[in-house]
Amino acid sequence: MDYQAVLDQVAAEVAPHVGRGQVASYIPALAAVDAGRFGMALADVDGTVTGIGDWQTPFSIQSISKAFALALVLAQDGESLWRRVGREPSGNPFNSLVQLEYENGIPRNPFINAGALVVTDRLQSLTGDASTTMLDFVRAQSGNPEISFDPAVASSESEHGDRNAALAYFMAAYGNLDNPVPTVLEHYFWQCSIEMSCRDLATAGAFLARHGLGADGSRLLSAREAKRINAVMLTCGTYDAAGDFAYRVGLPGKSGVGGGIVAVIPGRCTLAVWSPGLDAHGNSVAGVAALDAFTTLTGWSVF
Amino acid sequence: MDYQAVLDQVAAEVAPHVGRGQVASYIPALAAVDAGRFGMALADVDGTVTGIGDWQTPFSIQSISKAFALALVLAQDGESLWRRVGREPSGNPFNSLVQLEYENGIPRNPFINAGALVVTDRLQSLTGDASTTMLDFVRAQSGNPEISFDPAVASSESEHGDRNAALAYFMAAYGNLDNPVPTVLEHYFWQCSIEMSCRDLATAGAFLARHGLGADGSRLLSAREAKRINAVMLTCGTYDAAGDFAYRVGLPGKSGVGGGIVAVIPGRCTLAVWSPGLDAHGNSVAGVAALDAFTTLTGWSVF
Amino acid sequence: MDYQAVLDQVAAEVAPHVGRGQVASYIPALAAVDAGRFGMALADVDGTVTGIGDWQTPFSIQSISKAFALALVLAQDGESLWRRVGREPSGNPFNSLVQLEYENGIPRNPFINAGALVVTDRLQSLTGDASTTMLDFVRAQSGNPEISFDPAVASSESEHGDRNAALAYFMAAYGNLDNPVPTVLEHYFWQCSIEMSCRDLATAGAFLARHGLGADGSRLLSAREAKRINAVMLTCGTYDAAGDFAYRVGLPGKSGVGGGIVAVIPGRCTLAVWSPGLDAHGNSVAGVAALDAFTTLTGWSVF
Amino acid sequence: MDYQAVLDQVAAEVAPHVGRGQVASYIPALAAVDAGRFGMALADVDGTVTGIGDWQTPFSIQSISKAFALALVLAQDGESLWRRVGREPSGNPFNSLVQLEYENGIPRNPFINAGALVVTDRLQSLTGDASTTMLDFVRAQSGNPEISFDPAVASSESEHGDRNAALAYFMAAYGNLDNPVPTVLEHYFWQCSIEMSCRDLATAGAFLARHGLGADGSRLLSAREAKRINAVMLTCGTYDAAGDFAYRVGLPGKSGVGGGIVAVIPGRCTLAVWSPGLDAHGNSVAGVAALDAFTTLTGWSVF
Repeated sequence: MDYQAVLDQVAAEVAPHVGRGQVASYIPALAAVDAGRFGMALADVDGTVTGIGDWQTPFSIQSISKAFALALVLAQDGESLWRRVGREPSGNPFNSLVQLEYENGIPRNPFINAGALVVTDRLQSLTGDASTTMLDFVRAQSGNPEISFDPAVASSESEHGDRNAALAYFMAAYGNLDNPVPTVLEHYFWQCSIEMSCRDLATAGAFLARHGLGADGSRLLSAREAKRINAVMLTCGTYDAAGDFAYRVGLPGKSGVGGGIVAVIPGRCTLAVWSPGLDAHGNSVAGVAALDAFTTLTGWSVF
Repeated sequence: MDYQAVLDQVAAEVAPHVGRGQVASYIPALAAVDAGRFGMALADVDGTVTGIGDWQTPFSIQSISKAFALALVLAQDGESLWRRVGREPSGNPFNSLVQLEYENGIPRNPFINAGALVVTDRLQSLTGDASTTMLDFVRAQSGNPEISFDPAVASSESEHGDRNAALAYFMAAYGNLDNPVPTVLEHYFWQCSIEMSCRDLATAGAFLARHGLGADGSRLLSAREAKRINAVMLTCGTYDAAGDFAYRVGLPGKSGVGGGIVAVIPGRCTLAVWSPGLDAHGNSVAGVAALDAFTTLTGWSVF
Repeated sequence: MDYQAVLDQVAAEVAPHVGRGQVASYIPALAAVDAGRFGMALADVDGTVTGIGDWQTPFSIQSISKAFALALVLAQDGESLWRRVGREPSGNPFNSLVQLEYENGIPRNPFINAGALVVTDRLQSLTGDASTTMLDFVRAQSGNPEISFDPAVASSESEHGDRNAALAYFMAAYGNLDNPVPTVLEHYFWQCSIEMSCRDLATAGAFLARHGLGADGSRLLSAREAKRINAVMLTCGTYDAAGDFAYRVGLPGKSGVGGGIVAVIPGRCTLAVWSPGLDAHGNSVAGVAALDAFTTLTGWSVF
Repeated sequence: MDYQAVLDQVAAEVAPHVGRGQVASYIPALAAVDAGRFGMALADVDGTVTGIGDWQTPFSIQSISKAFALALVLAQDGESLWRRVGREPSGNPFNSLVQLEYENGIPRNPFINAGALVVTDRLQSLTGDASTTMLDFVRAQSGNPEISFDPAVASSESEHGDRNAALAYFMAAYGNLDNPVPTVLEHYFWQCSIEMSCRDLATAGAFLARHGLGADGSRLLSAREAKRINAVMLTCGTYDAAGDFAYRVGLPGKSGVGGGIVAVIPGRCTLAVWSPGLDAHGNSVAGVAALDAFTTLTGWSVF
């Protein structure tokens, strides 16, 4: 398939959507981003990378980091994680306390904030430095040693992090955090602040399309584990719009409020798209439209 | 692939699970079923049907009828249905009123009872006889004119149908039913009472693997619509265990409390499995295990 | 105390509030009422009745009937009712299904609709004709044989009664109704349709100020039971504004969407007030203001 | 009335209940208290104090401090507090986050933990030292300069305070705290740790029976404000058992998990009772029974 031609056509179809939606405004560092940006990259399982638009511009990956954190913990820990976090769609906004209370401090899945805090807590216990572990991982997989944290974003998240603090203390009250709450929050905010481009993200996430094989051919995860992360991304990866994303796009995907989305076509390729304007659920308007156009043009949904 | 050999191996692996779980007991007609039954059938896209165990024994399809009802309405009505019902996972037990109240009478998806009542209401408006329309459809697709309602199950459902009546009246209070509540309930109970075997179900559901083409090659649904039904089945098809089913099995599927499950491998085949013992979420214990074994043996999950 | 002078002053203070709020509009028969009406009556424990404004005009008592139903059941049945209905404030709108689901079909208290349906069900079991029993009771206590049902209101309630039907079927699903749902609903709608004036209501409710003694001096309830009904009225009698009513008025009271409120000053008198304009919680704007003014002028709150 | 005789009879009736229930165990300092203690004191509006049993033994007042905090804030601030906290019964356990989320960070009432944190925050803003202000107040009103904090309890509360931290951060996320979360928590834990005897509590709370007049006859609150605090205590003062407390006891009251309860008979007296065994709602078993017996013997409920 002529990837470049497909991406060109996707970009043309998506152009009217670029700039729509609202740029995330809860922290100043994100609010300053230009809503008119759009980029997309495709990394196929053979290592070819193709891109269009602002595909080489770094942006804040935010919640996309949750997919990497899950992979890192499952790789070391296997299934024991699921005693502390579920894998069911939440059906509620991504930072809801309600469900957490009804379910005694066990978050619904690893992609809502509460669940990601548990995963970060576990990664911290396993590695002693959760956020640096993730940074090293995405640098190695993408082959880009320039990837870094954005300290301004991390400290801004911390300053506006009362709700995440509430989630963390609440889980601590149920005994579901092993590390001190401030430590868990700090690593969580740092991992969210990692800046990567679409190119970086597509290559760093390519192991999910390669059934668990890393950039250098070594096995990061078993094929079964890689499939299972894809399954969790499909059912839980786009906040409380996962059903709609599956319906329209038909791919496993994980989005972030920085406007990025990573999507996986198992056995074929990993896609990364970025455009900062968000819909009411926190997903990139043009990003979802681009993935929708891509699967329509190629017929490559998983369904 | 030698389907018979695969099904033999699946049956061997699943044997220890058959008889586990609880047979549905809320109506006498279901409670009387032998928990030790197990059958499985595979209908590939070329029309070949393979089966094992009790694959030719009819059982009560119950909520599996919701998938047929959705297909019949989408085929005639297209996307307008989604104004009256969502397509997000519910995150709650299948007959919960809570979510319905918070969301003003719009059910989360067409596979929880409330959503299915809306779909049945629409099918009734479109056809004048929702349950007979469905019976005719499954007879035609499976090529088995013997498929029929079980009047004892239908009347037993009606006698024990207070909770479904509550759901229906509640949606009527929000103006989300067009037909009288007793009419909608009657057709809903009749469609749930249809008796089919695994063979019937696999063939009747084969259009979902054939991207919308019916048994005789005519187009029932567009490829896009067929994919979308598969997407809704994957995210919402197994009550509040959809995340776990995606994680373990990795296929679109729809289960019923009669112990049946239909699952789709797009472009390849449709599977039907039956074993009456249910887990705490209402899904067949041995049925889920069989599908898990099948995708493990074949590598044919969508992820 | 010169009751007439107090009521004159109350009426003067309340005049600016009369006509404010919204007249109940969910059924046509209530929507047609003139929002500008205002009446108030006081029946002291010695039998003196004083009134002002439209105090002799009959209006639809609606939920005020729930207080009479509770008294009639407690009088015959004593404490056993509390196994089927709680006595805690609901903290939710008066017809919420959410709480009912979380608490397995046991309504929070006898003054939300679900609880009142249980009380009516019990009154029906005890008497064979719940609504006529209540009509006979209020006629006897008020000494006004002209009090009657309004059939137009009752049938209009029934036509728009989907939500109450949902509540009733839901409780039936939990086994918390003894009579058929349509029977319970019918008697419930009829008792809500009783038309009484402020004069009738104040005298019919005077037993609550007289510690359980009826109009003819006979004992209807023990002093303990009368106090307890007052307690339930104070904590639960004005929908989800009971805390605010206690705070502002400081009296046990029961309101209805017809715009009436009955309030009790134990040992002194029973008050009835009517003005059809309702606040967001379903309580009469001018009615609450009048009771607030009354307790401020007299110092007769229970606190 | 011969108070001593009444208290003697109450103590005799309550004896079988003393020791029942569970002593609060979430912090070691409370868990060590002897469940067999029982004391009761009555301070009438003329200043007479009568007691029985362990009425002079100090215990941890815990949530009873919430009533003093509310009085101190209302005295300085008047009605403006109600923009930040409601005054409706919660219908949920006292530290629930669910309701707080549905109501956007505005706690239901000042007697659930979240609401008390808001009141403490306001008291801190008004005085610069919320907990010392309260200590000074109860010393002055009771005439006992020996009343003090229990530092072991305060630090134990803090160590086990994850859930209160979650509540506070959650409200901070909604902008409903003015002071830093750790400051608010610290003063909250200190005020809960105050140790007082039944004698101290009855006299310190006597202003609520004296319609707002302090121990020295000076006005602490207007009569209207004192009544209103009583109203809030009646509808919200005993966690999610307020309806039952009103039903059985019929008095405004505020309980604490240390086993104490303060109750008010407006115009007559303030009662304080202590026994550490708690029921499932966190109220003293023997304490509620003693107040029930007292109102039954004297007929002095507010109803």
